Amino acid sequence: MQVSVLTGVQHIRLAERPVPTPAHDEVLVQVTAVGVCGSDAHYYREGRIGDYVVDGPLVLGHEAAGVIVAVGTEVSDTRIGQRVSIEPQRPDPTSAQSRAGRYNLCPAMEFFATPPIDGALAEYVLIQSTFAHDVPDDISDEAAALLEPLSVGIASAQKARISAGSSVLIAGAGPVGLVTAQVARAFGATEVIVTDIDASRRANAEKFGATRVIDPAAEDVRAVTVDAFIDASGAARAVIDGIHAVRPAGTVVLVGMGGSDYPLPISVIQNRELLLTGVFRYANTWPIARALVASGMVDLDAMVTARFGLDGVEDALNADRQPGSIKAVVIPGLSKETNA
Amino acid sequence: MQVSVLTGVQHIRLAERPVPTPAHDEVLVQVTAVGVCGSDAHYYREGRIGDYVVDGPLVLGHEAAGVIVAVGTEVSDTRIGQRVSIEPQRPDPTSAQSRAGRYNLCPAMEFFATPPIDGALAEYVLIQSTFAHDVPDDISDEAAALLEPLSVGIASAQKARISAGSSVLIAGAGPVGLVTAQVARAFGATEVIVTDIDASRRANAEKFGATRVIDPAAEDVRAVTVDAFIDASGAARAVIDGIHAVRPAGTVVLVGMGGSDYPLPISVIQNRELLLTGVFRYANTWPIARALVASGMVDLDAMVTARFGLDGVEDALNADRQPGSIKAVVIPGLSKETNA
Amino acid sequence: MQVSVLTGVQHIRLAERPVPTPAHDEVLVQVTAVGVCGSDAHYYREGRIGDYVVDGPLVLGHEAAGVIVAVGTEVSDTRIGQRVSIEPQRPDPTSAQSRAGRYNLCPAMEFFATPPIDGALAEYVLIQSTFAHDVPDDISDEAAALLEPLSVGIASAQKARISAGSSVLIAGAGPVGLVTAQVARAFGATEVIVTDIDASRRANAEKFGATRVIDPAAEDVRAVTVDAFIDASGAARAVIDGIHAVRPAGTVVLVGMGGSDYPLPISVIQNRELLLTGVFRYANTWPIARALVASGMVDLDAMVTARFGLDGVEDALNADRQPGSIKAVVIPGLSKETNA
Amino acid sequence: MQVSVLTGVQHIRLAERPVPTPAHDEVLVQVTAVGVCGSDAHYYREGRIGDYVVDGPLVLGHEAAGVIVAVGTEVSDTRIGQRVSIEPQRPDPTSAQSRAGRYNLCPAMEFFATPPIDGALAEYVLIQSTFAHDVPDDISDEAAALLEPLSVGIASAQKARISAGSSVLIAGAGPVGLVTAQVARAFGATEVIVTDIDASRRANAEKFGATRVIDPAAEDVRAVTVDAFIDASGAARAVIDGIHAVRPAGTVVLVGMGGSDYPLPISVIQNRELLLTGVFRYANTWPIARALVASGMVDLDAMVTARFGLDGVEDALNADRQPGSIKAVVIPGLSKETNA
Repeated sequence: MQVSVLTGVQHIRLAERPVPTPAHDEVLVQVTAVGVCGSDAHYYREGRIGDYVVDGPLVLGHEAAGVIVAVGTEVSDTRIGQRVSIEPQRPDPTSAQSRAGRYNLCPAMEFFATPPIDGALAEYVLIQSTFAHDVPDDISDEAAALLEPLSVGIASAQKARISAGSSVLIAGAGPVGLVTAQVARAFGATEVIVTDIDASRRANAEKFGATRVIDPAAEDVRAVTVDAFIDASGAARAVIDGIHAVRPAGTVVLVGMGGSDYPLPISVIQNRELLLTGVFRYANTWPIARALVASGMVDLDAMVTARFGLDGVEDALNADRQPGSIKAVVIPGLSKETNA
Repeated sequence: MQVSVLTGVQHIRLAERPVPTPAHDEVLVQVTAVGVCGSDAHYYREGRIGDYVVDGPLVLGHEAAGVIVAVGTEVSDTRIGQRVSIEPQRPDPTSAQSRAGRYNLCPAMEFFATPPIDGALAEYVLIQSTFAHDVPDDISDEAAALLEPLSVGIASAQKARISAGSSVLIAGAGPVGLVTAQVARAFGATEVIVTDIDASRRANAEKFGATRVIDPAAEDVRAVTVDAFIDASGAARAVIDGIHAVRPAGTVVLVGMGGSDYPLPISVIQNRELLLTGVFRYANTWPIARALVASGMVDLDAMVTARFGLDGVEDALNADRQPGSIKAVVIPGLSKETNA
Repeated sequence: MQVSVLTGVQHIRLAERPVPTPAHDEVLVQVTAVGVCGSDAHYYREGRIGDYVVDGPLVLGHEAAGVIVAVGTEVSDTRIGQRVSIEPQRPDPTSAQSRAGRYNLCPAMEFFATPPIDGALAEYVLIQSTFAHDVPDDISDEAAALLEPLSVGIASAQKARISAGSSVLIAGAGPVGLVTAQVARAFGATEVIVTDIDASRRANAEKFGATRVIDPAAEDVRAVTVDAFIDASGAARAVIDGIHAVRPAGTVVLVGMGGSDYPLPISVIQNRELLLTGVFRYANTWPIARALVASGMVDLDAMVTARFGLDGVEDALNADRQPGSIKAVVIPGLSKETNA
Repeated sequence: MQVSVLTGVQHIRLAERPVPTPAHDEVLVQVTAVGVCGSDAHYYREGRIGDYVVDGPLVLGHEAAGVIVAVGTEVSDTRIGQRVSIEPQRPDPTSAQSRAGRYNLCPAMEFFATPPIDGALAEYVLIQSTFAHDVPDDISDEAAALLEPLSVGIASAQKARISAGSSVLIAGAGPVGLVTAQVARAFGATEVIVTDIDASRRANAEKFGATRVIDPAAEDVRAVTVDAFIDASGAARAVIDGIHAVRPAGTVVLVGMGGSDYPLPISVIQNRELLLTGVFRYANTWPIARALVASGMVDLDAMVTARFGLDGVEDALNADRQPGSIKAVVIPGLSKETNA
């Protein structure tokens, strides 16, 4: 089978590898779509994210969908042929965190496209059967792949305690910010304010759930008052301003894997008794993600702005630098000439 | 001013009373709309609800909206002229329950139209300023009045822990069931199943949020599996069937003031560790109710099926017996001839 | 090895079976102590508990401790020799309930001494390594075995939301009631009221955590007001009285596997918005149980009132009928002559 | 009556003022004991705490107990003569925060000894009746006064989600740290680790609840793993080290009113999904505080290390600089000569 491999900083090449064989609890998935995430681009460009360093060949891609084509000995044959969305993680189910329902925090986690675990930019990929979530026909392959970033948005909304009538401030109108804005609406938020310094990204936010957008260069974000603030920007200034916008006893959620440390307005957190936390991936979100897309409450298809074949992965990784880009998807069956 | 008074079982008469004067923390509201609740009809027909007995003249009506026309000494003049929705309760704010955020459970509660406290079927009514919630112009008088039953639905959804992607079973497609179905959707539920033995009420449910309706006489409700069950029927059989439909660790919410006791399937509650609770009115729901209506997530106007003047209160109380009736509203300014 | 087998109603016999071999994720435990539970006695006397029917030979006993003497291929050798307390359950870790942190509700559960799964009344028993919890030397074999009923008490206290300063009513001063009273104190409850119709059991309660005991035949339980009520009696009358004793927004926890259904005071549950739930075994309690015993906050050793060998299991099962009995323990190494 | 007034930085003088008259909902309390808090000393030495600036005469003292000697028109005469502990705050009970059960976050709060609201260092003081909590005879005057700092400890333990079997790290063995250590034990924590750079303060911690003490200058605090970290030191280094000691999904609670901002280890908070929050005073803690002291679970009397009369307030404010000092108490009836 063909596999796209990151072999060094800014070096991607196609390789041939044998199609893998499922272990007893696994399924073999023929990949139909893989979303490109900012972390993929980051590994490609920098060779690392924080403490996670790429020090060998690595297959990128952790937003994936496909069709089950083979199953392990303990998996029912009836799964063959099912269209599935891949939850790209393998925790140890017996760890204390897993047993407590927080398998995303399992210290023995093996996660797709996080060194040294290979991801899904390949024709075929293995996943534990119970992490291959079947999807109904009215969810497209691309939407099925994007249940992964949707899950990040769901985890963020849950931690932000968003419910009907909530007001939410979201910093950053990239793919995570946009999906989180949609999720916030699905959770019942009636006020979803998205900030971004880029006008075209703000325009995207208005299409994907924002009830109001703010240009932080032009308007004082701190003048807003919200129940919850979700940072999907990673920018210190945005985080600090966002914290100032939260009402007493409100929540602050920092999405992502963390970058450098910076001073937080501690007295604001204390005097308002804010609840601040982070989102590190997700647990138990796929059934919710699937229901939100199937019911039409969240639109993932409209977020796909470019498509590439396996031979176009470098272009896909750089697609975020194209004006108007939201989400690039790699379709293994697509060849370079037919990139859409 | 004119007041509609319940003077005995099935005896309603119009009376003249002086317009009351607001105490220091109160406002005087000129009533524009009053929804008729099942409990109003129950007091009218039976003279009691459980331990609450009507033993003197009682003004009914606790779903009310109006315009502030006078204020007490500690209330800002700027409130005069505001259109408001009335939260019809006066708890003791210093009780332990109030201090803990559960003022609906305050033992010193004075609640509209609950003996011996008068309600809102009058031209003017007093309410503590902070329980007169201002409403924007895009919320009609009738919808403003119906923020009260909407609050019951919100309290039910909160206790049922409904969130994005939840599945919910609601028994009873009367006004409370219908508003709860809408609220469930607003909280993100993607599966809202409503049961009712009456076909026209099931048809209403399909208009107001249900994704599926069930005739319990024709279909086995226990065959369903849901995250939460909300009873808005008060029928023992519906409650028992509903409990059997809830997945392990799911929730059961009994709405209303309770009737006679009946056997519950205790082993199901235990073996599935279900969480069963009741809803007794509401606390802190008005801002949410207002936001849901203003944002269009809940439609209250479409639930109004009949309108009466203060001289038509008996007809309004009996309107629930008309085919197709959902919610009758009394408009004090309306005279009998102009009933719509 | 010797095994005690229930071969029919009130028929227990010693059998010889081969020592089992641990699967890859299991350990072989040489049993040092097995507590006798009311459910063991119930299976022995009635041949069933609710829907769970004994229809073949069954080894009883699910409160067990021992020493690891062999390990499966995926378990570290260093475990050999460890003294352990057995958490007697094998859920499917990939089920939705397990993934959500509620593995006790896993539909694929295999639980010790619940037909058709054998229990621990044997010289050796297998358990998944991660459910064999090591215990420090200052926890005795018997206390290690009794971490199981302690876990029931912990699950009950958690569901009852007991915290520092709580007041708790516990119905029933049998082993579960006594351990729950101790646990309530460990959770910070300052008022622990235990009811029992038996004077000697009430006296036990006073030794094990109760700050007050009530004879429900002599005193009105409903006159009490508590934050939480935990039923460890299974008696309808006790449950109904207990519910009446709970303050608004308080909790009601029904411990055990449920018996017949009976009418609950539904209007009390509704009007006070009580939270009623059941405890079905436990999840993630062993580390807490171990810490409470090791720290001296809970005393399990003092609850052991009789000891028997594997050849004395019938006597052990009937020990609950001896005056003053609290908890009988089977010590496989003990022979009948040396029963203590 | 005599009142001790802060008239400028490091200027305290005794003044005569008329005994005040209770408003309709107030009681007049003859003060029997007032604990001296670090914030009192801070106002005395610096004239401000953060944004709270002393710009007029201010009576310090917010940890107070006494006897009710007169009542307002709406308060029952039967309260006269009651020994009470004062909860030194007056929120607006109709604010959104108060209605939600978080009256400590009410924006209209008037709090004792916070400019411009006078405190309790006087012979008599007024308080709203429902914030004058009666205490049983087995709680001393001094312990009754110290229910206030105990409430801070309770709020901290609640926010830290401490329960039976929890492990807790507390930074700082001053009065707040010591009372929090005791509270942690009362909440069931079995491991309470207290850090302080001062050996005599560490020795105090061992007397008041710590199961282990650490000198952060000699030992690496980050090598510890705990469920919760509570900072009672206000030191950036202690906070940063403490955060590193918390297990995934654990809690971080910053006690106090906040100082300058400093960089937090954001990637640790994110990658472990820690929950970080602050404690700003307390709500609904007095009944718990009283129960913990009455039951003997917390010992406040042993924390009093010095006593002064109203004429010794300056000495009392400086008592924290005496070796071995934990908590100084002002006894209005005590004259300088009789200081103990």
